[in-house]
Amino acid sequence: VRSLTETVADGDEFDYVIVTLKALPDVYDVAEIIRPAVTIGKTCIVLIQNGLGIEDPVAKTFPMNPLLSVVAYIGVSQLSSGRIDMQGTELLKIGIFPKVMVDHAKQVEARDRFVGVLRRGGVDVEVIKDIQADRWQKLIWNGSFSPISVLTLGDTQLIVNNPEQKALLVNLMRDVIRVAAAHGYIFDEEATITEMFAKTARVAPGYKSSMLLDLEKGQPMEVEVILGNAYREAKAKGVAVPYLETIYTLCNAVNQREKKAREMKAAQNTPV
Amino acid sequence: VRSLTETVADGDEFDYVIVTLKALPDVYDVAEIIRPAVTIGKTCIVLIQNGLGIEDPVAKTFPMNPLLSVVAYIGVSQLSSGRIDMQGTELLKIGIFPKVMVDHAKQVEARDRFVGVLRRGGVDVEVIKDIQADRWQKLIWNGSFSPISVLTLGDTQLIVNNPEQKALLVNLMRDVIRVAAAHGYIFDEEATITEMFAKTARVAPGYKSSMLLDLEKGQPMEVEVILGNAYREAKAKGVAVPYLETIYTLCNAVNQREKKAREMKAAQNTPV
Repeated sequence: VRSLTETVADGDEFDYVIVTLKALPDVYDVAEIIRPAVTIGKTCIVLIQNGLGIEDPVAKTFPMNPLLSVVAYIGVSQLSSGRIDMQGTELLKIGIFPKVMVDHAKQVEARDRFVGVLRRGGVDVEVIKDIQADRWQKLIWNGSFSPISVLTLGDTQLIVNNPEQKALLVNLMRDVIRVAAAHGYIFDEEATITEMFAKTARVAPGYKSSMLLDLEKGQPMEVEVILGNAYREAKAKGVAVPYLETIYTLCNAVNQREKKAREMKAAQNTPV
Repeated sequence: VRSLTETVADGDEFDYVIVTLKALPDVYDVAEIIRPAVTIGKTCIVLIQNGLGIEDPVAKTFPMNPLLSVVAYIGVSQLSSGRIDMQGTELLKIGIFPKVMVDHAKQVEARDRFVGVLRRGGVDVEVIKDIQADRWQKLIWNGSFSPISVLTLGDTQLIVNNPEQKALLVNLMRDVIRVAAAHGYIFDEEATITEMFAKTARVAPGYKSSMLLDLEKGQPMEVEVILGNAYREAKAKGVAVPYLETIYTLCNAVNQREKKAREMKAAQNTPV
């Protein structure tokens, strides 16, 4: 099938709806997009998306449905339509999202069945007890490398090789680690930072962040779920994150500027 | 005369050498550029430049010459070659630079004579006892509005109208005010910030900073004297300036990226 309309026309009910859309709560509402395919109390919703706080709006709209949260580790860049450059390993970490009004057993059942399907398909899957820990961990990378790459238009190599930019990376990682800690997710600061740099050198040297690729392609960037939500979580807990705050403000400005540019271009191309 | 070579060919000695070059210590050495026109112990050097710490390298090279430091307030944008857009008032604040091995009386004499010439020419001049206070004050604007404009490609209006960017402006102003205080230049934080916004709305609404104009013209930006020196002064005094630090790192990266782009372009245009 090619579209949601075509899919639901048969009257079928779905066991799973898998969301792999960019997480852009400031652009569209994922819950509204998938609504036609969701049977209340039955369909398990699977979010394979980046960022923090992506589950909440879906859980709020569909509190009676099983909800799975997946963090994907795929070192891939789409260079152009159909041209994929795979630079790292592939792994899906999967966990249940507990804050829905669904029996834990039913959530686990939905998860295990989904994991089984993936494994039979040869996908590398890891079942995680508290997937939010992985969301925070991934955010340590995405909240530091991504915004610097966007604001400097540089790849990982260029950033790491510059002592000042490397220092800023570290300060951003520390900010994120501090917010995570305030939410009960404790990372060993020094060990984590060391590992982030080691892993980047190993699997993603000269790597362009997905946020930078989005900017280059003229698409909205995942600023809100990667930086905005972390910043708001920091504010809510009274944690000072000056580096994260600055970088969020600037990336937000770039996002808004590009949006305005797209709108102006679209207006010019619209026949009167 | 059109060039320094042409100027000094006559064998004349000069009473004054007036420097209105962009302050780019990472690109060229002003002292070396003016050297042919400077008679040791005689020529008074006048620096009409932006930023902080611009006098030190000149004072070090010519410790026996009177040295004047001028802060210009001219709300002008050069939109293209020969096309000037004047948006504000014009005022020169002038002071002696005390850290040279020249009698104070001789410095004052050089200053007063220069001020006399300017005034006879109808220039609005103010004699300032400690010109560094004005350099710090101007830096509160230039160290906040300029880098945000560069990183977001926005004018003053766009920045002030966005609540998050306005908050970042304020945080940057506070950082600069704190470094200034550590050097003995005390500004009333709240009053100064309020006045900065009021003045910007009054004389520079919708104004593009000179740093942004430099970026747009593909020219090096005055990142070192506006942000770098202030950041280093903060570090030297142990003052935490996370906002200034972040913004300096990012603007520096943009400067380096543009420099590399210029060099690559130049290399391509060079016949082998």
